[in-house]
Amino acid sequence: MAKRGKISDAVIRRLPKYYRYLGDLLKNGVNRVSSNELSRLTGFTASQIRQDLNNFGGFGQQGYGYDAKNLRDEIGRIMGIDHKYKVIIVGAGNIGQAVANYAGFYEEGFEVKALFDKNPKLLGLRIRDHEIMDIDELPSYIDEHHIDIGVICTPKEVSQEVADILTSSGIKAIWNFAPTDIKVADDVAIEDVHMNESLYTLAYYYNEKSENQKDDEK
Amino acid sequence: MAKRGKISDAVIRRLPKYYRYLGDLLKNGVNRVSSNELSRLTGFTASQIRQDLNNFGGFGQQGYGYDAKNLRDEIGRIMGIDHKYKVIIVGAGNIGQAVANYAGFYEEGFEVKALFDKNPKLLGLRIRDHEIMDIDELPSYIDEHHIDIGVICTPKEVSQEVADILTSSGIKAIWNFAPTDIKVADDVAIEDVHMNESLYTLAYYYNEKSENQKDDEK
Repeated sequence: MAKRGKISDAVIRRLPKYYRYLGDLLKNGVNRVSSNELSRLTGFTASQIRQDLNNFGGFGQQGYGYDAKNLRDEIGRIMGIDHKYKVIIVGAGNIGQAVANYAGFYEEGFEVKALFDKNPKLLGLRIRDHEIMDIDELPSYIDEHHIDIGVICTPKEVSQEVADILTSSGIKAIWNFAPTDIKVADDVAIEDVHMNESLYTLAYYYNEKSENQKDDEK
Repeated sequence: MAKRGKISDAVIRRLPKYYRYLGDLLKNGVNRVSSNELSRLTGFTASQIRQDLNNFGGFGQQGYGYDAKNLRDEIGRIMGIDHKYKVIIVGAGNIGQAVANYAGFYEEGFEVKALFDKNPKLLGLRIRDHEIMDIDELPSYIDEHHIDIGVICTPKEVSQEVADILTSSGIKAIWNFAPTDIKVADDVAIEDVHMNESLYTLAYYYNEKSENQKDDEK
């Protein structure tokens, strides 16, 4: 495949939102959508949207809008969610089990193949048809099953060690739920879901709004 | 309380990371930390860090660094995580149960008081000492128990409706796990954890890196 033109990180992070809204529109029988309509849905400005979509050829026609299906397919292709990924989860506690059970990921082509833990109480338990395996089996499993993505749902104290095992076994994509920043080589993609940080941020804005409210009432 | 000087959103979103690393340092017996050391840990530049921390008075002393405990306490105070929050969860499926079971939130003062669902199979089940209640009881429960934060873990089709019930019952902070953007009034704080978007982004960077790798090998 030819090397793509470089798309900025800011645009990349907006693509999933376009993808999601276009899917909703199609489900509701809407096949054409204007940048103004996308603006109303996403909260981005129409001019921002046109600029973003131009980045990869766009499909808008003046006065006619975008073909929702073509646009969504193209965004899916760019993000690489037009093909399937084999996923394993390390850490089969609450979050690990929740990720394994989340049906939406399967529909989008992210297929959880196995869960790993080192807690003897969890080993052998089945989560959505997958037996929880011993973390010692991780390297051989990855090698045999050509796993694409490793999800880290362990306590933060062991998350770096788990990441090292994953990458030394050939994993090039890590989805990290541990509340810490994992260090990986440049050729490994990593994305964090830092729930604590999101909750702290919510607390901040909650307090800010409530203080403003009190001030307004004075 | 006096109205704080306005801190930019970008700074706010870095505060949880400072807070987390300072906690790790303290746990390891480190009481003084320089902006250079914080830079190494967080990945932000030392000058960025000094600028951020100056925003709220800072505590750095030339050649001596920051007092880790004071700094962490102050950041905690600014974010409002120095006091307790009463939390309810709506949608007691995989994600809702995982959030309810996540011990880290309790330690930080976010106390889950109840879970709600409308699935008759879930009603009456107990999650971490809380019975799952019928969603019809939501408004009266919020009113009686002075709930601060509502967590939405429902399917996206009903998430806006749930948000409307929460806010009309007086909730001013919503933590949304449904893969959709919820609309709320200006005086309501909302934070999303859009796991799908994070996973799509991971897929993008995974593919980008793997294509670059192939190109390099040519």
